[in-house]
Amino acid sequence: MSNKQSIEILPIGIVTTDVADDDVARQRRTMVSEIQIFEEYAAGLKGIEEYSHIIVLFWMHRVDRSPRQLVHPRGDPSLPLTGVLASRGRGHPNPIGFAVAELIARDGPRLTVRRLDAYHGTPIIDVKPYDQYDVCTELRTP
Amino acid sequence: MSNKQSIEILPIGIVTTDVADDDVARQRRTMVSEIQIFEEYAAGLKGIEEYSHIIVLFWMHRVDRSPRQLVHPRGDPSLPLTGVLASRGRGHPNPIGFAVAELIARDGPRLTVRRLDAYHGTPIIDVKPYDQYDVCTELRTP
Repeated sequence: MSNKQSIEILPIGIVTTDVADDDVARQRRTMVSEIQIFEEYAAGLKGIEEYSHIIVLFWMHRVDRSPRQLVHPRGDPSLPLTGVLASRGRGHPNPIGFAVAELIARDGPRLTVRRLDAYHGTPIIDVKPYDQYDVCTELRTP
Repeated sequence: MSNKQSIEILPIGIVTTDVADDDVARQRRTMVSEIQIFEEYAAGLKGIEEYSHIIVLFWMHRVDRSPRQLVHPRGDPSLPLTGVLASRGRGHPNPIGFAVAELIARDGPRLTVRRLDAYHGTPIIDVKPYDQYDVCTELRTP
């Protein structure tokens, strides 16, 4: 089926952070990182500093790519097995990380952000402003 | 540089909707669509119906892939040129669409959603539950 054809994407930048890989999960709500957008895409950042928050899509390059169907939420074996697509953890068919990060500063191609739960060296695949219409306040979650 | 190596992703499903392509932009806040997850990934949906909203990543397959650096927000030439990464429109280096959609129903591999601004036939590349920590209420936007 042609609609199952694979898609090629290109990294547009890279994450740098002083937080060690083993500490990312624990510090994910507060950690500060930098996103370095590659030179050829950097002009596309013009004006992003007017937003307080950005959506960051990244490629979880360390995850082994053998997708699972069911996972224990938060890796906790006491929690019942849940579909991987109903979980925010690892094991999605395409290991694309998603975070809403606070944009602390922009210095040319370099964005300083808080709350991006990505390892040092992670490829960035997209950045978008987070806007009012992304905020849903009447949520139901398990 | 090895960190600029291209990445291969696979569609995991497809969008179906009765809304005509030309009406998607205008109806984006209310339109109803279905996401059909391909059979090999469908078990991964178990439990997603416990969430009221989901994050949908899709591949904007109709967009020609000649990324721009600067765009007029909302395609309105009276608005000043802004970086494409500071805009939610087309022209991002990787044309990955992002929507927070309301999950109306799940019927096996089929999700009925509201507010997914994607054309009929759009490949889905990821689905994640939208959770409390994705909600940022103290926003600054231009």
